[in-house]
Amino acid sequence: MRREIAMPTFHVELFEGRTVDQKRAFVKAVTAAAVETLGCTPESVDIIITDTKRENWATGGTLWSDPRPE
Amino acid sequence: MRREIAMPTFHVELFEGRTVDQKRAFVKAVTAAAVETLGCTPESVDIIITDTKRENWATGGTLWSDPRPE
Amino acid sequence: MRREIAMPTFHVELFEGRTVDQKRAFVKAVTAAAVETLGCTPESVDIIITDTKRENWATGGTLWSDPRPE
Amino acid sequence: MRREIAMPTFHVELFEGRTVDQKRAFVKAVTAAAVETLGCTPESVDIIITDTKRENWATGGTLWSDPRPE
Amino acid sequence: MRREIAMPTFHVELFEGRTVDQKRAFVKAVTAAAVETLGCTPESVDIIITDTKRENWATGGTLWSDPRPE
Amino acid sequence: MRREIAMPTFHVELFEGRTVDQKRAFVKAVTAAAVETLGCTPESVDIIITDTKRENWATGGTLWSDPRPE
Repeated sequence: MRREIAMPTFHVELFEGRTVDQKRAFVKAVTAAAVETLGCTPESVDIIITDTKRENWATGGTLWSDPRPE
Repeated sequence: MRREIAMPTFHVELFEGRTVDQKRAFVKAVTAAAVETLGCTPESVDIIITDTKRENWATGGTLWSDPRPE
Repeated sequence: MRREIAMPTFHVELFEGRTVDQKRAFVKAVTAAAVETLGCTPESVDIIITDTKRENWATGGTLWSDPRPE
Repeated sequence: MRREIAMPTFHVELFEGRTVDQKRAFVKAVTAAAVETLGCTPESVDIIITDTKRENWATGGTLWSDPRPE
Repeated sequence: MRREIAMPTFHVELFEGRTVDQKRAFVKAVTAAAVETLGCTPESVDIIITDTKRENWATGGTLWSDPRPE
Repeated sequence: MRREIAMPTFHVELFEGRTVDQKRAFVKAVTAAAVETLGCTPESVDIIITDTKRENWATGGTLWSDPRPE
């Protein structure tokens, strides 16, 4: 497969609490997914993770640190 | 009103120091604003807040942790 | 109410297709929501919208330009 | 495996030129990578792609639309 | 000066209308500024520009495509 | 030079560990670079820095907190 220059740069927001082992497996798997489907080199894949507190994320107007409405 | 699929996803940078109560009121009000003006469902509104230190934000070349020039 | 410096800066991703009228109403309502709940000045509220194609957004591994699985 | 709430939200910048087929394969593979390594549900994975012009990306001070220095 | 690994990755939102010449000068100058003040290598500096329509940016609740209130 | 409205808003991800002095010099130099090449006012330049842990950044599928493969 011809290598294509795609330069995928990922920013990923996640709830805090992932371990380093989980992050290590995550970035390895996501990089492989990008390489396989985009045809880019592994070295061109950057992934930046943002650990996010539940009090800093809301869905449906409710913080994830609060109880969810039924 | 017909519900439209708009999927508003908010990233909001704020100076750190907002309380959870302020954040709770903030995401509730912003979600309502999105629902009313875009016609989307509340559940489709995601809001992610980034608490930002004043030493990490500059306007006019001056960090907000430093005294502002007159 | 004492004005607080919060500097809320919003980035909002939306499916493309919102009209300028919808955007106008949206930024007005979101700005008002921020001012009321954070105690900041209207002038300190910045909102940047990103119109996003459905082929550029996926949930559950399916592009929104494709039919959703049942 | 217990499902964890991780809520991974991806923003991915790529050079423009990827086909819809490439994007379809890409989001499917990245979602699977997240589900496997984070233990989240597929439905909780959001991926937003930004097609980026080469004149809007620089590395080493050179736009990617310009010839790279040797 | 010892080279430090800082990996500065810039995302810059600008009103659309900058020419390629302006962008070329801009990324060159910003990269030099980062290298000088952070001690990183030029090659480690990535800059991604987002051309933004005035109808997609609001300050003070008013779109920049609309007349500004006095 | 005619002042242009460009509104450059920077988000910069960096490895954590930069001192406030480095950040102060950095935002001053980047703001000057923007003003000179875009013709905007200093006051219109906003820079938001994100200090990023090495365990939250991967290149080539390897976290920067881990040893790099040869």
